Amino acid sequence: MQKIILVTNDDGIYSPGIRFLSQIAKSYGKVMVIAPDKPQSGMGHAITINSTLRIEKTNYHQTEWEYACSGTPVDCVKMGINHFLKQKPDLVLSGVNHGSNSSINVIYSGTMSAALEGALEGAPSIGFSLCNYSVEARFEQYEPFVRKIIETSFSHPMPKGTCWNVNIPDLPSDMIKGIKFVRQAKAHWVEKFDERIDPYGRSYYWLTGNFVNFEPESTDTDEWALQNGYISIVPTQADLTDRQHLNELKKLFHE
Amino acid sequence: MQKIILVTNDDGIYSPGIRFLSQIAKSYGKVMVIAPDKPQSGMGHAITINSTLRIEKTNYHQTEWEYACSGTPVDCVKMGINHFLKQKPDLVLSGVNHGSNSSINVIYSGTMSAALEGALEGAPSIGFSLCNYSVEARFEQYEPFVRKIIETSFSHPMPKGTCWNVNIPDLPSDMIKGIKFVRQAKAHWVEKFDERIDPYGRSYYWLTGNFVNFEPESTDTDEWALQNGYISIVPTQADLTDRQHLNELKKLFHE
Repeated sequence: MQKIILVTNDDGIYSPGIRFLSQIAKSYGKVMVIAPDKPQSGMGHAITINSTLRIEKTNYHQTEWEYACSGTPVDCVKMGINHFLKQKPDLVLSGVNHGSNSSINVIYSGTMSAALEGALEGAPSIGFSLCNYSVEARFEQYEPFVRKIIETSFSHPMPKGTCWNVNIPDLPSDMIKGIKFVRQAKAHWVEKFDERIDPYGRSYYWLTGNFVNFEPESTDTDEWALQNGYISIVPTQADLTDRQHLNELKKLFHE
Repeated sequence: MQKIILVTNDDGIYSPGIRFLSQIAKSYGKVMVIAPDKPQSGMGHAITINSTLRIEKTNYHQTEWEYACSGTPVDCVKMGINHFLKQKPDLVLSGVNHGSNSSINVIYSGTMSAALEGALEGAPSIGFSLCNYSVEARFEQYEPFVRKIIETSFSHPMPKGTCWNVNIPDLPSDMIKGIKFVRQAKAHWVEKFDERIDPYGRSYYWLTGNFVNFEPESTDTDEWALQNGYISIVPTQADLTDRQHLNELKKLFHE
């Protein structure tokens, strides 16, 4: 039986990155594209509960089914699976994101939240990101890697509830050394708020920041892999429990 | 030296839940309230990168510093720490949320994303939620528990990068049996999209859903604690790596 593949992203349904991914997906099955009707970067795992959702059919991807949704990336996955397909897809693909979602970026990322939502729905899911923010980025050159990763997910299924966070370094494809399965590097952003004055004399702010890797020396992280010319894959899941601290607290308070 | 405490939420700066928390916080130090100027439930770890932020001084909490921000709960924490305080607070408090943030709700929750952001900034952080969605909920009765939890966090500091996800069952305070340190229950939402027709004949949708606990029999989860009359505390952190699956993949592909 033909596979059903749901494709989404956070840059919006008309982005080059998702078009690249939807065309690859076609060769593996019937494709539903359901993606935000406008850019939704940095939306994290947001869902739309205080307002309503709208859906428009589109024809940009020339896939089996295709919808632009007014909601977040997570809304798109929920709606695609529960409202349109009414069944679990065989694969959820999110991206290709224009920009890195490695390390701590995973929790701010609409792309990865969509992949994680697919995993929560019980579908194997992969989020792809390219460490290049330009709309001119040449995605096509990475097609062999993207295909290899998708095919690896078929031959080595991920456990239910887990998805893959794939980041591709900003290198010409012939400079990429290979693929590494790695863990999420510990890092954070040091923010700076760029204050400006509007034409009416009132302040407004742009959020800006610098990424700080807390463990640049570790060689088993996604940051290391990307810095060293590898595509990184982090198996990613949604249980945030700090088990070590939990065990300490249980010993202190419950024993 | 006096502690500095940052208080935020996702229901908005004028919610009863945050007012309750800010008044308690006053007895522990100097309090900055910086919270969304409108409800931001379900915003997850969203940040504002495609638009600008506005700040207004308010006077609803009568605290040391007080700002309503046009952004998300995570924006509020970033701005409070990096723009206003310019130092790490001694404690970040988020909530009290009007509604549960137990189990998988943690990843959709603006309240908990704000607490997690505090942890990422290196500050001890606690997110509080009451399993009652009503604006009429009687928060005051839970004050002794909230104080006990804050004081426990002083006497037993959480590791850097970890925060506490506190959920209070919807019970009169004298029915609450105590506090349990527990793990996040595995669960998901089964969504249904409520389709309606607008006055112009076009469809729109409301996201609705039913919570499904995958492990109702487990007795070490937040869901179990809440169902059995306990306040649940889950130590929560932002490393989403699935280590078990990672180890399997490393063995298969890197050894």
